Amino acid sequence: MTSLNKDTTVCISLSGRPSNIGTRFHNFLYRELDLDFLYKAFSTDDIEGAIAGVRALGIRGCSVSMPFKEAVIPLVDVMETSAASIESVNTIVNDHGTLTASNTDMEAVAALIDSHGLDAAAPVVVRGSGGMAKAVVAAFRSAGFDDLTVVARNEAAGTALADKYGYRWSTETPDLDGPILVNVTPLGMDGADADTLAFDTAQIAAARTAFDVVAFPAETPFIRAARHADVPVVTGAEVIALQAARQFERYTGVAVTPDQVARASEFSRQVVSGG
Amino acid sequence: MTSLNKDTTVCISLSGRPSNIGTRFHNFLYRELDLDFLYKAFSTDDIEGAIAGVRALGIRGCSVSMPFKEAVIPLVDVMETSAASIESVNTIVNDHGTLTASNTDMEAVAALIDSHGLDAAAPVVVRGSGGMAKAVVAAFRSAGFDDLTVVARNEAAGTALADKYGYRWSTETPDLDGPILVNVTPLGMDGADADTLAFDTAQIAAARTAFDVVAFPAETPFIRAARHADVPVVTGAEVIALQAARQFERYTGVAVTPDQVARASEFSRQVVSGG
Repeated sequence: MTSLNKDTTVCISLSGRPSNIGTRFHNFLYRELDLDFLYKAFSTDDIEGAIAGVRALGIRGCSVSMPFKEAVIPLVDVMETSAASIESVNTIVNDHGTLTASNTDMEAVAALIDSHGLDAAAPVVVRGSGGMAKAVVAAFRSAGFDDLTVVARNEAAGTALADKYGYRWSTETPDLDGPILVNVTPLGMDGADADTLAFDTAQIAAARTAFDVVAFPAETPFIRAARHADVPVVTGAEVIALQAARQFERYTGVAVTPDQVARASEFSRQVVSGG
Repeated sequence: MTSLNKDTTVCISLSGRPSNIGTRFHNFLYRELDLDFLYKAFSTDDIEGAIAGVRALGIRGCSVSMPFKEAVIPLVDVMETSAASIESVNTIVNDHGTLTASNTDMEAVAALIDSHGLDAAAPVVVRGSGGMAKAVVAAFRSAGFDDLTVVARNEAAGTALADKYGYRWSTETPDLDGPILVNVTPLGMDGADADTLAFDTAQIAAARTAFDVVAFPAETPFIRAARHADVPVVTGAEVIALQAARQFERYTGVAVTPDQVARASEFSRQVVSGG
């Protein structure tokens, strides 16, 4: 900490209830790459004042979490497509006073669809209709998937999301031939739903790919069941690490290797409280 | 830096052109005392946005430097006497959203008048009429000194300052019997005036005490001349360290020893650029 100086570049996160993940991930890589940067998570209940502070203090990067992903939209200067298309911001870069917003969650999901070689001809089932589900559905649409079912109990949210991208909505997981199953609900997450499977065991066993957005734990019941059935998986740990790496690259201008991302991700997941 | 976490308490400084002194002083003591705090100097040209950020981000402490010492007054909630009496703020403490302003420069000068045993019956000459001169003159007034001459070329500033406290103004250092000489100008400071004596050699030799507010270097020509003439000195290095220690105690609630202050001060003065 004693290397900290007046010229150290500061990046922050803003959320209602921050975790330690981002702070540990970014600071690990700053040290690893010998960058004079500092990252600190902040909680706030005043997003306007916080963004005024980002501008006035010349804070370089600002990660945005619940419940501010939509509220920051009128406070930035430029919306990149990744954020504009889903009206949800998780990243702000400050270039000498110009705030540019993007959504690296969507970018990370799109990159994982590509790197895992998911077949655009396959049917997709996305369970969930919240903010992250928007990013996931938009990523599948942009990757050219035509057959996607949004599974959600909430009809208004489910149909709104499905209709926006020309997809179907259902309250139940449909029977499909070798689908890509994607969980974007809290099912399987540390906490009350930790032991709940996001899909039936039989559905998982018949799936082409099991894709979980839940990052804590990395091995959710859904992912464990898929591994047990030899179904290829994409984990939430991959999503959270990749979206953070994209933020890191935007904030610093420095590209990171998959190995560096993996080690930063591992470090960020140690001794973590508050998810 | 990897110990940094979401709960780390953040203190900052705000100025037009920050130095590294505060950042190094405070972070040294945080490490020394094992406190989960972080201090970072920021430059800004938007004091309102910066204070909005202090509130929104829950920043615990905020040191205020030129040119914002008066501009922050309408932005805080409570003015302590040290700041209110001279209409100049150098310290803001944020107690759960209530911003309390004080002036630890004035407190430090007052404390040094006391700890160095300066005699309130002695005549005092204060050279300078800027913001810091206000703090110095107010400190002498509050310590009970009745005979003080403000020496300043600027008549408007000089008479305003002298009149406020019932003192005299002069353009020249008066001939007095064993005065306390106080330099509150940039004379002797690193830079263009580094070699300039703040008072004549004969005046210094006849003085009771030589008190310099210039902190860089600690041994100004004025202080060196006084030491050479066996005149007791109070240095600007003492002022800056003591005012920072008072800020530290306000921000953390932790008292520091003179030895800790001395070591933090020594550390803060190493490898310093920008004054």
